[in-house]
Amino acid sequence: MTIDVRVHLLPQLFEPAELAGGVAVVIDILRATTTIVHAVNAGVQRVVPCAEVETARQLAAQFPAGSVLLGGERRGERIAGFDLDNSPLKYTPDVVRGKSLIFTTTNGTRALERCKQAERILIGAFVNRAALLAQLQAESRTVHLVCAGTAGGITSEDALFAGAIAYALLTPGSPAPDDQTQLAIALWQACLDDPGELLRTLRQSRGGRNLLELGYAADIDRAAQCDLFSDVPEFDLAAGQISGTN
Amino acid sequence: MTIDVRVHLLPQLFEPAELAGGVAVVIDILRATTTIVHAVNAGVQRVVPCAEVETARQLAAQFPAGSVLLGGERRGERIAGFDLDNSPLKYTPDVVRGKSLIFTTTNGTRALERCKQAERILIGAFVNRAALLAQLQAESRTVHLVCAGTAGGITSEDALFAGAIAYALLTPGSPAPDDQTQLAIALWQACLDDPGELLRTLRQSRGGRNLLELGYAADIDRAAQCDLFSDVPEFDLAAGQISGTN
Repeated sequence: MTIDVRVHLLPQLFEPAELAGGVAVVIDILRATTTIVHAVNAGVQRVVPCAEVETARQLAAQFPAGSVLLGGERRGERIAGFDLDNSPLKYTPDVVRGKSLIFTTTNGTRALERCKQAERILIGAFVNRAALLAQLQAESRTVHLVCAGTAGGITSEDALFAGAIAYALLTPGSPAPDDQTQLAIALWQACLDDPGELLRTLRQSRGGRNLLELGYAADIDRAAQCDLFSDVPEFDLAAGQISGTN
Repeated sequence: MTIDVRVHLLPQLFEPAELAGGVAVVIDILRATTTIVHAVNAGVQRVVPCAEVETARQLAAQFPAGSVLLGGERRGERIAGFDLDNSPLKYTPDVVRGKSLIFTTTNGTRALERCKQAERILIGAFVNRAALLAQLQAESRTVHLVCAGTAGGITSEDALFAGAIAYALLTPGSPAPDDQTQLAIALWQACLDDPGELLRTLRQSRGGRNLLELGYAADIDRAAQCDLFSDVPEFDLAAGQISGTN
């Protein structure tokens, strides 16, 4: 079975209606989707993505005390009054298990918003790459790999992951990949010859350099690890929340 | 000397002010910049790029009869009443030598408009690649490689050419390329291992498939030929026209 795969290097490079009938994968490797994969695999009950900080605070206030966590970032740092920043390493089982996580980030949340016309929305990162691939290989719908980017700009870490997934999904019978998909695949192919290139790409990207300046080198190292987790976060459109599927 | 190179995969992915103080290369391989390179190397006196069809007609009317040609396209085809379409093969010395060419295309003209804050604006295509490279290697200013794209979307033939130029300009001492530049270079590197890949990329791209449907396969073949010409078209900002430099 051939799968139709389309990479979108930025959310603004497609019209939301193009995703109707398809499966969307939201990709924000540094760090929102890497962090959501950690939270879900650490046993969080639900992740409620939220565009605005104030809305996140209001939502959290509706949960019983002790059952909810506020997480996310603005300009890469923890938001005042929030429990957690956007560092995947903080989302451990002892911290998040059984809790509801209200989560707001700049790029990742915006990308998710733009995917809501898809029939299914999954969350992808290198840390759950193999599990995501298994979900996608069982699909007959068009797969849209949606890169969040950084501050409206294309980022190579998101493109690299989209390329890795597209490369794995294409089979000899597949139609020629479209222009953005071809670019992403070429970037991934450069990594196939050199195992150190993945981490190097993450460190040299615009998002990676920001994180290095802020002192989050360990987060980049973690985001570059492949196939750590088996649960794939899935956004439930009706409930407006993310939980795991495998 | 190291040169700072930045690829812009679409005109709308940068702010015009980012180009201030730099050198811009406008890239619309299929077909505007390939055609302008042909016209200039065939001895055209000047090319006046023009955004609107009606403006092009009005401009042409101001030249003495017999001294001016109207060229360009809408939806890939010749415009009613124009002398020439956007096919590079039509711009031969016997047709264009000594003439003024008023030229309007959809993507290429828009890309040029967005480059007007650069200090210098050159026109690039595979057909004048080596000559363009020689001009750029003598520059100390930042080089912006501006891909025109097709109908607002990224196209791989423009990205491929930008990657070829960026790859050639980077030296071991150069800073790590930014995210879009890295994507373009990876696409070009895929061609280095396989000489047939360049033409294949042009035929499979969004713009290439459009041209094949319209019956312009020979134009794609021509656009994929490297280093045919030695003159590099340069846009004179004060005069609003393009002529050759070498």
